[in-house]
Amino acid sequence: MAAHMTPEEFRRYGHEMVDWIARYWENLENLPVTPDVRPGEVAARLPEQAPETGEDFTAVLADLDRVITPGMAHWQHPAFFGYFPANTSGPSVLGDLVSAGLGVQGMLWSTGPAATEVETVVLDWLADLLDLPKRFRSTSSGGGVIQDSASSAALVATLAALHRAGGGAWRTEGVRREYTVYTSTQAHSSIEKAARIAGIGDRNVRLVEVDEAYAMRPDALRAALDADRAEGRIPALVVATIGTTSTTAVDPLPEIGEICREYGVWLHIDAAYAGAAAVCPELRWSHAGLEYADSYCFDPHKWLLTGFDCDAFWVADRAELVQALTVLPEYLRNAATESGEVIDYRDWQVPLGRRFRALKLWFVLRWYGAEGLREHIRSGVATAQRFAEWVRADERFEIAAPHPFSLVCFRLRDSNASDDSGASDDSDAANDSDAANEELLRRVNATGQAFLTHTRVGGRYVLRLAVGAPSTQERHAAGAWKLIQAAADDLDAG
Amino acid sequence: MAAHMTPEEFRRYGHEMVDWIARYWENLENLPVTPDVRPGEVAARLPEQAPETGEDFTAVLADLDRVITPGMAHWQHPAFFGYFPANTSGPSVLGDLVSAGLGVQGMLWSTGPAATEVETVVLDWLADLLDLPKRFRSTSSGGGVIQDSASSAALVATLAALHRAGGGAWRTEGVRREYTVYTSTQAHSSIEKAARIAGIGDRNVRLVEVDEAYAMRPDALRAALDADRAEGRIPALVVATIGTTSTTAVDPLPEIGEICREYGVWLHIDAAYAGAAAVCPELRWSHAGLEYADSYCFDPHKWLLTGFDCDAFWVADRAELVQALTVLPEYLRNAATESGEVIDYRDWQVPLGRRFRALKLWFVLRWYGAEGLREHIRSGVATAQRFAEWVRADERFEIAAPHPFSLVCFRLRDSNASDDSGASDDSDAANDSDAANEELLRRVNATGQAFLTHTRVGGRYVLRLAVGAPSTQERHAAGAWKLIQAAADDLDAG
Ligand SMILES: Cc1ncc(COP(=O)(O)O)c(C=O)c1O
Ligand SMILES: Cc1ncc(COP(=O)(O)O)c(C=O)c1O
Repeated sequence: MAAHMTPEEFRRYGHEMVDWIARYWENLENLPVTPDVRPGEVAARLPEQAPETGEDFTAVLADLDRVITPGMAHWQHPAFFGYFPANTSGPSVLGDLVSAGLGVQGMLWSTGPAATEVETVVLDWLADLLDLPKRFRSTSSGGGVIQDSASSAALVATLAALHRAGGGAWRTEGVRREYTVYTSTQAHSSIEKAARIAGIGDRNVRLVEVDEAYAMRPDALRAALDADRAEGRIPALVVATIGTTSTTAVDPLPEIGEICREYGVWLHIDAAYAGAAAVCPELRWSHAGLEYADSYCFDPHKWLLTGFDCDAFWVADRAELVQALTVLPEYLRNAATESGEVIDYRDWQVPLGRRFRALKLWFVLRWYGAEGLREHIRSGVATAQRFAEWVRADERFEIAAPHPFSLVCFRLRDSNASDDSGASDDSDAANDSDAANEELLRRVNATGQAFLTHTRVGGRYVLRLAVGAPSTQERHAAGAWKLIQAAADDLDAG
Repeated sequence: MAAHMTPEEFRRYGHEMVDWIARYWENLENLPVTPDVRPGEVAARLPEQAPETGEDFTAVLADLDRVITPGMAHWQHPAFFGYFPANTSGPSVLGDLVSAGLGVQGMLWSTGPAATEVETVVLDWLADLLDLPKRFRSTSSGGGVIQDSASSAALVATLAALHRAGGGAWRTEGVRREYTVYTSTQAHSSIEKAARIAGIGDRNVRLVEVDEAYAMRPDALRAALDADRAEGRIPALVVATIGTTSTTAVDPLPEIGEICREYGVWLHIDAAYAGAAAVCPELRWSHAGLEYADSYCFDPHKWLLTGFDCDAFWVADRAELVQALTVLPEYLRNAATESGEVIDYRDWQVPLGRRFRALKLWFVLRWYGAEGLREHIRSGVATAQRFAEWVRADERFEIAAPHPFSLVCFRLRDSNASDDSGASDDSDAANDSDAANEELLRRVNATGQAFLTHTRVGGRYVLRLAVGAPSTQERHAAGAWKLIQAAADDLDAG
């Protein structure tokens, strides 16, 4: 017999590991947010081969401090303001721990009834908490499922849309070159990637123009649909975004939804980051028009206190989804599936196997309650709004886009913003100013005391400060703002 | 502020959770392997809505025993012989725990350098342990990456193959209806599903005939390729299997590889289950011919002591894979990526975000060492071979397929096997005998003391006993065999 870890050993090392994590969290604020490592430096600290005989676990534990922590960007650090947050929390970690311990593979209802049913129930709870349309519930025609990511949710939505557009022929005949997909220029790259994976081809993805608030223009969508139809193309899918990645713009769902209905096109809503905001009634304006959607997703692993990976994906008509994705070989046949009374989540996703991911979501919802979730969102929004006030109060800076949630986009103004010089000088000035903003970001991040990322909107380089880590308080945003101002002082000084 | 779990609370509840898991493992043998629950029964034990205010964690813990355990199929049970094993182990669970605690999102090298580099190193280690061809190493032209599942690995391989077949046009133009995919009739359904997802269409997947050992016939593959070429189709991908799902047949890679080379077709090897066996030199015959492969995958989450999800996927030419999958928006640009010196694993997979899954694999390899891994495989193989001897010694039963690894396929013989009656009677008899085998399986599983699944090979209903859970010992297989014999006695008696 191999030397398996005994339950006693597991107890001992498990306690040590839990304590290690608790200490890591307690100490996080003292660590640099991002590491100062060069490519290959972490790898160089590891042996070239796996050990021939098993090692003592204390050596493994020691390597967490020697190899891992110093080589890590600390996403849970209170001064991590990059990208969008990737939340986790105590109850989420413990839910994942139980899931790992059970080691259940819930591909079918019968291979883990509790794994399936808890997932169904918890996604119904979540649909309630976000006030999603009734038809998304499992008790109606739809239902929710956990995907690993919003990217995979977009892929699954794309496949269901192709199945519908092809009248069933897509499964057997494959993709037709006439199919087209529509999303805005501000949509996440995963929409384009999903279309590529589905065989649609990048050039059949229409990136629809946005308005001055970076939201999709319904008239431009309609024009694109008409142009394609006139050329004999078959519009298969529209993806609208609630909370775009660059600036958290909200596409106008009511108008887009009407158009999709008129043209008979599947409407998928990507609310990867901002969906979590819908737990707060005062932020539900962002979800107006959701009743038009055929599918919807958001990432509890971004801003709802649940560790990666946990994307919540709903469809209005589960039968369509299952028809698109099911393949049933003999070795997976079983009485429960044949009864038609159960959900087999393998038919709702790309992979076959699946972990019991609902546990962490269940633990989070029970630990925080609806109240706690709302507090978390509200605290992030309040801190971001405060940050925006500080930016507005410093005339060297400007706000680059509306900021309804917990992300603020801002930049150093063009130094010659008041200058009236000609077009080519303007673009030189713009380049200089973009370079100044890029340098500002580099300097702030190099302090290791805060981490922000950037984007481009309207062609211009813009800094993004995304609030949302559970440990972030206003003082951390204030600290980041001080660093930013100091870096701007330095840049001014030359 | 929301009431986050404090580090002290996390310590307390974390220790309780670790203890709960240790107790669960200690007690597993006393639980029924599969639960006696009806659809909806678990859901009925849960409230209809999420709580408004946070609950005490002791209530959550109590629900593990009240709701989860009795609703679970226990994949880690020593008498779980269904499907293929879904291993986990103490070190794997602890690796997952650290990963959850760090809460890092390693989509880019820069968002978690250690997450990326540990993954690269550990997959190089694993390539060594399995003695994979040199070009699969990151130190050569290839490299490994963790996918969630063999299904996703097959999808990624399909996409890279399409990219190659299309000479780059696939990305922009999409799939062409001429592309065809080849795999055997015994291949896993995920190959067909991957082709469907990629827009190839079920009817462009050729299921190549197998020989009497259920391995792909190279002459049939060649004939299929020739027929398609003659009709102007473009063969894009061949998927060969090491260890098919139904019977663990091994496709003849040397011959298949030669053909793929001759026809210029991407060769992907799916060794989801049996790949783990290659840690043992005496089982490496199964991997002969691997040097022809463009990509290869196996699931440490099946038979190599690492919890789901952990599929190890390698490509011989990483540049091709990245070209196929990359989409680079501004908000993901960063200095490290631009330097070209790092791996960004987001371009090696379907989703964008990723967990630090390499930790659990790293922990497992260090805890067990190469030696421990080999012992685990050998113990599974030995137990299965012993089981096959018992089956052979009982004349009521027959072995249904070769069993080189840890799966044994067997069945009750046709009661009239010696009878010389005509064809229609034969098929009636076959139906009766299939029904008897089905009933036998039902009775064995209904005891709750063992769990097996079934398949069909050569059109006949066959029972599968897959050994491989870390806790399984010979006495558990012996117990299952007693149950099977007793059920056969009962069937004989009436
Ligand atoms: C709007 C939007 N959609 C999709 C995604 C992709 O998220 P995931 O990593 O869950 O695929 C993101 C990530 O930031 C996003 O902002
Ligand atoms: C040969 C083979 N390939 C692929 C798979 C799919 O595995 P996964 O759940 O990792 O996608 C299986 C599962 O049993 C398998 O046996």
